[in-house]
Amino acid sequence: MRLAVIPGDGIGPEVVTEALKVLAEVVPNAEITKYDLGASRWHATGELLPESVLNELRQHDAILLGAVGDPSVPSGILERGLLLRLRFELDHHVNLRPGRLYPGVRGPLADPGEIDLVVVREGTEGPYAGNGGLLRKDTEQEIATEVSVNTAFGIRRVVADAFARAEQRPRKHLTLVHKTNVLEHAGSLWSRIVEEESLAHPDVTVAYSHVDAATIHLVTDPSRFDVIVTDNLFGDIITDLVAAVTGGIGLAASGNLDITRRNPSMFEPVHGSAPDIAGQNLADPTAAVLSVALMLDHLGERESARRIEASVAFDLATRDQNSPGSTQAIGDRLAALVSS
Amino acid sequence: MRLAVIPGDGIGPEVVTEALKVLAEVVPNAEITKYDLGASRWHATGELLPESVLNELRQHDAILLGAVGDPSVPSGILERGLLLRLRFELDHHVNLRPGRLYPGVRGPLADPGEIDLVVVREGTEGPYAGNGGLLRKDTEQEIATEVSVNTAFGIRRVVADAFARAEQRPRKHLTLVHKTNVLEHAGSLWSRIVEEESLAHPDVTVAYSHVDAATIHLVTDPSRFDVIVTDNLFGDIITDLVAAVTGGIGLAASGNLDITRRNPSMFEPVHGSAPDIAGQNLADPTAAVLSVALMLDHLGERESARRIEASVAFDLATRDQNSPGSTQAIGDRLAALVSS
Ligand SMILES: CC(C)[C@H](C(=O)O)[C@@H](O)C(=O)O
Ligand SMILES: CC(C)[C@H](C(=O)O)[C@@H](O)C(=O)O
Repeated sequence: MRLAVIPGDGIGPEVVTEALKVLAEVVPNAEITKYDLGASRWHATGELLPESVLNELRQHDAILLGAVGDPSVPSGILERGLLLRLRFELDHHVNLRPGRLYPGVRGPLADPGEIDLVVVREGTEGPYAGNGGLLRKDTEQEIATEVSVNTAFGIRRVVADAFARAEQRPRKHLTLVHKTNVLEHAGSLWSRIVEEESLAHPDVTVAYSHVDAATIHLVTDPSRFDVIVTDNLFGDIITDLVAAVTGGIGLAASGNLDITRRNPSMFEPVHGSAPDIAGQNLADPTAAVLSVALMLDHLGERESARRIEASVAFDLATRDQNSPGSTQAIGDRLAALVSS
Repeated sequence: MRLAVIPGDGIGPEVVTEALKVLAEVVPNAEITKYDLGASRWHATGELLPESVLNELRQHDAILLGAVGDPSVPSGILERGLLLRLRFELDHHVNLRPGRLYPGVRGPLADPGEIDLVVVREGTEGPYAGNGGLLRKDTEQEIATEVSVNTAFGIRRVVADAFARAEQRPRKHLTLVHKTNVLEHAGSLWSRIVEEESLAHPDVTVAYSHVDAATIHLVTDPSRFDVIVTDNLFGDIITDLVAAVTGGIGLAASGNLDITRRNPSMFEPVHGSAPDIAGQNLADPTAAVLSVALMLDHLGERESARRIEASVAFDLATRDQNSPGSTQAIGDRLAALVSS
């Protein structure tokens, strides 16, 4: 297994260290290459993602990313120039974000019920396409546009993947989240493709929810969701809410998948670089560890993935919720559980 | 006071009846004209919003709308052809949505803290502009676009209004919610205008939150928000979440304001037509009643507005939360409280 690791900024390096510690218990001989990308490289060299590095990254089976972002870098630079660029260059069209409320975990909801869902977020188009512009900048007549670009090709591969995932799950239920009553054209294309693909998956029941209503359901009745398929921006918004109701972004893992496997997929915790707690051994590495499990699952190492997930579930059920321990302590516990 | 009333579909007529009952206690001589718009008119005549009706609506001091929408009408027809058309034709640029957790009301959060915020949602542009299209429809090469149109003019008037509202509130705090790290151009324009307007309002503290992070904050720490200013689509999404965490859309009121007062403003509960419970005297008319309070406030009848709000607050604190009573019973109680 050839693995590229981008520790990144803030708490990124700390949580990645623990994630690799856990990985070593199930895949002792992984060949790991670290890539120094993020705020410090940008400050030192002005580079975000040199072509040579991108080409090297392509030679790996998968990429593990900690977090990028630092207050010293203007907002958007690292996000668009590094994180989104990786997702677009490596055609990470399926942005996979499971949301599970583990036993023992207290989220913000008084009565959450069971939450076990997965969001299949489109990752390479929609409002993230970067098609927009400014006209008459710095005048009172200024106009800013942002174009959401949605293609049948781009939507179909993601919708098909979501149906395939729904088919593998006990409830076999899929919800399209969009805003079809306002975004008429994109909404029509998404709806038609979901209808078409549902013909090929007659055992999957299909529901629709406007994105605004979905935020209500996620806090009042999250159990209704099984697989959610949605566009890039709606997916961005609702997966943070999903993370919140399942105990916080300290636990939320994600995979940026090229399901054709032409490019390496990239796995990252949903949380950011959290510069306020960086370097203090305070960050919870669980999301990074669960991202490793997603990675192993994607690479066909199902047994190892299940083992890590089970260890995380055990640790979450038994840890002291108010003081779960330091970054390193949690990593040590998880590594011990995985190896036991 | 010349008031146009659009009862609309589903529970719309029921909640509007109670709202008018409460209004009559404070403004006994309001001149009320009902307009039959919505699903049944569309079915009967194909009409959504005839020019003649639009012109008549313009002759009023304000519009009260119940709800529009019915499963028998294809999604989007009434939304775009009636509701959004009214907002755009009447230049309802400030979509005002207060979110307050009233004492006694149980929302979904275990530990909500105090919630008393107001969202100033832009109402006439952004992704709602209706600028989009389909290319190569019904082929595998189909492309759907949606253009978010943002103007300095449109943003400034809304941001200025939000600052003015923040200045009137004890905490004097304003949060811009956007996605500036991805929507570079629109984000840049919104950010620059907030910065500029903040110079004119030095007593208001300003914060920024990405829309995805805002959904987390709304369920983990909603008290941090005072006034939120945001674009049309982000406002749509987060105000449903705000409604959910403050006890549900049965309580959430909104005003679609033309703050220049060239056109009548329109007041409506945030909830939809709820066809599943329509005609059964089951809907909570509180959101419609609170919308009347917003209307009176906008029309300068501050004393009457406060009276209605205080009555709602009293009723919410004392009602049986599990069986608050029928639509009519709640309306009767509120009318009695207002007149007492
Ligand atoms: C950092 C940002 C560009 C990114 C996104 O919007 O996709 C993040 O919010 C995420 O969800 O991974
Ligand atoms: C019905 C729909 C068009 C509308 C909107 O998106 O604005 C509604 O969700 C609202 O928030 O008033």
